[in-house]
Amino acid sequence: MADANHTNQHSWTMRGESMTRIETFFAAACAFAVTMVVISVGTIPHTLADLLLATKQIPAFTASFAVITWIWHTHSVWSRRFGLEDTKTVVFSCLLILLVLIYMYPLRIMMQALFAVISDGFLPSLIRLQSEWDVRFIFILFGLGFLLLSINFVALYWHGKRSQLVTALSEYEKYQANTEIIVWLTTSLVCITTLLLSVFLPIRYIGWAGYSYFLLFPLLNGLTWHRSKKWS
Amino acid sequence: MADANHTNQHSWTMRGESMTRIETFFAAACAFAVTMVVISVGTIPHTLADLLLATKQIPAFTASFAVITWIWHTHSVWSRRFGLEDTKTVVFSCLLILLVLIYMYPLRIMMQALFAVISDGFLPSLIRLQSEWDVRFIFILFGLGFLLLSINFVALYWHGKRSQLVTALSEYEKYQANTEIIVWLTTSLVCITTLLLSVFLPIRYIGWAGYSYFLLFPLLNGLTWHRSKKWS
Amino acid sequence: MADANHTNQHSWTMRGESMTRIETFFAAACAFAVTMVVISVGTIPHTLADLLLATKQIPAFTASFAVITWIWHTHSVWSRRFGLEDTKTVVFSCLLILLVLIYMYPLRIMMQALFAVISDGFLPSLIRLQSEWDVRFIFILFGLGFLLLSINFVALYWHGKRSQLVTALSEYEKYQANTEIIVWLTTSLVCITTLLLSVFLPIRYIGWAGYSYFLLFPLLNGLTWHRSKKWS
Amino acid sequence: MADANHTNQHSWTMRGESMTRIETFFAAACAFAVTMVVISVGTIPHTLADLLLATKQIPAFTASFAVITWIWHTHSVWSRRFGLEDTKTVVFSCLLILLVLIYMYPLRIMMQALFAVISDGFLPSLIRLQSEWDVRFIFILFGLGFLLLSINFVALYWHGKRSQLVTALSEYEKYQANTEIIVWLTTSLVCITTLLLSVFLPIRYIGWAGYSYFLLFPLLNGLTWHRSKKWS
Repeated sequence: MADANHTNQHSWTMRGESMTRIETFFAAACAFAVTMVVISVGTIPHTLADLLLATKQIPAFTASFAVITWIWHTHSVWSRRFGLEDTKTVVFSCLLILLVLIYMYPLRIMMQALFAVISDGFLPSLIRLQSEWDVRFIFILFGLGFLLLSINFVALYWHGKRSQLVTALSEYEKYQANTEIIVWLTTSLVCITTLLLSVFLPIRYIGWAGYSYFLLFPLLNGLTWHRSKKWS
Repeated sequence: MADANHTNQHSWTMRGESMTRIETFFAAACAFAVTMVVISVGTIPHTLADLLLATKQIPAFTASFAVITWIWHTHSVWSRRFGLEDTKTVVFSCLLILLVLIYMYPLRIMMQALFAVISDGFLPSLIRLQSEWDVRFIFILFGLGFLLLSINFVALYWHGKRSQLVTALSEYEKYQANTEIIVWLTTSLVCITTLLLSVFLPIRYIGWAGYSYFLLFPLLNGLTWHRSKKWS
Repeated sequence: MADANHTNQHSWTMRGESMTRIETFFAAACAFAVTMVVISVGTIPHTLADLLLATKQIPAFTASFAVITWIWHTHSVWSRRFGLEDTKTVVFSCLLILLVLIYMYPLRIMMQALFAVISDGFLPSLIRLQSEWDVRFIFILFGLGFLLLSINFVALYWHGKRSQLVTALSEYEKYQANTEIIVWLTTSLVCITTLLLSVFLPIRYIGWAGYSYFLLFPLLNGLTWHRSKKWS
Repeated sequence: MADANHTNQHSWTMRGESMTRIETFFAAACAFAVTMVVISVGTIPHTLADLLLATKQIPAFTASFAVITWIWHTHSVWSRRFGLEDTKTVVFSCLLILLVLIYMYPLRIMMQALFAVISDGFLPSLIRLQSEWDVRFIFILFGLGFLLLSINFVALYWHGKRSQLVTALSEYEKYQANTEIIVWLTTSLVCITTLLLSVFLPIRYIGWAGYSYFLLFPLLNGLTWHRSKKWS
């Protein structure tokens, strides 16, 4: 996604060369969020055994760190492109920050569980899923978070397209903004599908609710390939 | 309020296009404050039950987050309009930061109590009011905080109006600055009314001390409607 | 001090209109420091009694907050005046940050003790001084901190005066930079006097080690009055 | 290293005079990291004995603080020189931040152990190494961290050299960028040597794995002396 954003970066007039206030706020909040995700293991390591345990959590930390910085980066790319600082921008950006703050610990918990499964228990997980509804709850929680994230980026690009900018958008830029909107709308649809599957699938097929996210790869790749043809 | 600030934004010459030092300080402190308000539930969730409990606090988090970001945003709008960086600006802004830091946890506690009442106990509250004086204390604590906030914004706009700016204020801008001062003075008066009610009302009518804040809606709407007539 | 810095602000060419990297770093570190000083009472208040206790610590919080923001502000005034971003600036600024971080909690503890004494025990203190050496230790700890702070500001202004700036310093600016250096050297001397008194005074006269800081008022006021005569 | 970076600073065209987004993110994360390293002793000091204990950790705090600010400063020098803000810059910088966050507590633990050894137990250490493998683990952990740090700076300067900049690099600047790359490659090689020694040396000679870092002094000094001859 981040790469797609940048492929034709040199063709965008960057309207937000200097940082806006909301970006500083966003950067500071994300910087705290990643720091808290990485360091707050609950206790500061005092013995070497603690240190070794902390070391085993590095994969989960790294993955959570990557997700949060990716969200920050996607927002900062939008900001450089449009350079907006009005009320709507502030509202959408604050919602994004709120989403990051609410999901930061659940994200780390899930990443730890994921790496515990992948490493067959070598890497430690702090959480156990005990019933059918625990599993559904997790799928719904993260499905909702990803859905809100996608809708938020749709709203940001939609808002950018309709705003009066310092320099009007070129044809190429309008086309790319539309591509971004389509990309995030597609992501939203996949999230809704996953949410429905999480609720209604019989429990023994519940894994398919997770696998359905893999639909994003062919969909988004096909989409960006199709749309980039016109301008390459 | 934020919307009112922005309705005629395009008619203001923005004198503070690049961020001042005090704004960076303000943004960092507020970003930290919202992060701490949202994440520090006391413990990091370890089990799914913890996670579910944390989920139930999202409404209170969101409300506290909204209040703090609204204060930050109102200050940053003032800053863009006047672009000041002198000692008085620093002092008033630091008082605002101090107010945010002192009230951040009490704010969350009250929001949790509010949502516990609204949801009839489904959403959890961490605090119980046990006596008449507990209730009065809470009303006075928040009344004072809101009063200081309002006076601070009166002081900021007053200071902005009287300062020697890079570009002198236009007639329209002077009129709008006066509007802001009147808005925040009105808010201060409502706060003082509420404070008096909180102290002197018999305890069984104490709720009216809280309801008196609803006076702000007709007062401020009437005011901004009346004053916007001249320029619309 | 801050006021003295600003009295003739309009006569300085501000060479650092846009923030330097080290200032952003400084602002972020101070913003965290004040947040941690204000919020980390050890526990998040859960009951109304906790909240009331937290309320009683507001004077100590405010005083600590004021000291830290004053240090930040004094540094940011220096930065606006000279606009430097070289290695020496980074080193001196980092030492200042380190000083703030090391002294933030001891500062709050002392402020609490001070307000406990002033309020005759109504405001709570968390620390008890139990022996002669406890008292001497506290005086020496804070005397050293204030001494290092003063020397650091001497070094910053000295460095500013000797650096090659975008616009050379005017006569007035050189004179003011010298005034700052003299002010902070005087402060250093008072700190050294206090340190000597803290070590060598008989314990029953130890209070005079603290009172000797009041020498700063006549000394600095006389000094700034004397030096401002030439330019007013 | 920092000094070497700056010796010929005036001969570089600084392409990144205003801060980029990633730098603000970096500064905020590092400011948070140093704050947490210095303040989070686990508990806030409540008694004078606690305060005295906290005072004894100042050397370890200062050393950890110096390492983290040095990494931040080295990155910010790179940033001022090249002024880049593309995807690769963001990725390399985020990896650097992750490295800082992962290593901040282990760094402090090691610094405490180091000062405990130097002061013969007067300064407290929180960790005991109990077996041969504990020692090897520590050497490998820090060797890996330093190796990744060095490779990251090689990558940043390599990326800077190959990027299309606003102003093309002068001959002098290309030469200096190459010097930086060679410096960090040399550092990487020393780290790899140390890592091999940490794994394969018999345990009673394990100290030599640590001493081998002293190879950096003659190597880097010789290198910068040799390369600076051409331009001095």
